[in-house]
Amino acid sequence: MGFWNLKELKLNEFRPGIFSKIESGANLTMAVMVIDSNKEGSPHNHPFDQCGIVLEGEIEMTVGEGKKLLAIMETYFIPAGTPHNWKTLALSAKILDVVAKQSV
Amino acid sequence: MGFWNLKELKLNEFRPGIFSKIESGANLTMAVMVIDSNKEGSPHNHPFDQCGIVLEGEIEMTVGEGKKLLAIMETYFIPAGTPHNWKTLALSAKILDVVAKQSV
Repeated sequence: MGFWNLKELKLNEFRPGIFSKIESGANLTMAVMVIDSNKEGSPHNHPFDQCGIVLEGEIEMTVGEGKKLLAIMETYFIPAGTPHNWKTLALSAKILDVVAKQSV
Repeated sequence: MGFWNLKELKLNEFRPGIFSKIESGANLTMAVMVIDSNKEGSPHNHPFDQCGIVLEGEIEMTVGEGKKLLAIMETYFIPAGTPHNWKTLALSAKILDVVAKQSV
């Protein structure tokens, strides 16, 4: 809780090839994720915003009609309700991802 | 909107010595900020979570009873309602900061 040093933070494998650690408060969830190369999500959307930044490697993000291979120091912003997906190619990716928690 | 490359993103000076660009959706506001050295905020709190990561330089973050000089690849998470403040010392800081938007 509070402060993380991502250079030494231990992550947990929560799906095969996807390692993460999350911190969650009243209305935000922050996640550090390391995703192996050649992994892919499935298109989905949710009624809350999501955003993040690539810290290492590369990840292809599809947001609505836009698709971009993001590298280090590139960010994404996914407005609430917008269909999106992610895919890693030859490189793994380390990202910091933040979502608004769904209102109860 | 969508994707930013922070290596070439143009920021605007919104207070003396503080440069930023923000993107805001239904329930998140993401901001890239560059803060000159030797700047300091004022202690405050708000009823929504805030989090972020240091991308360049250093910034001292005070969150509740905790205080830490954060460097590159270090993150902070400020739970809703927790008093906090920030301060730059000899170095400037570039951060990515995300807040939940206050519910109406």
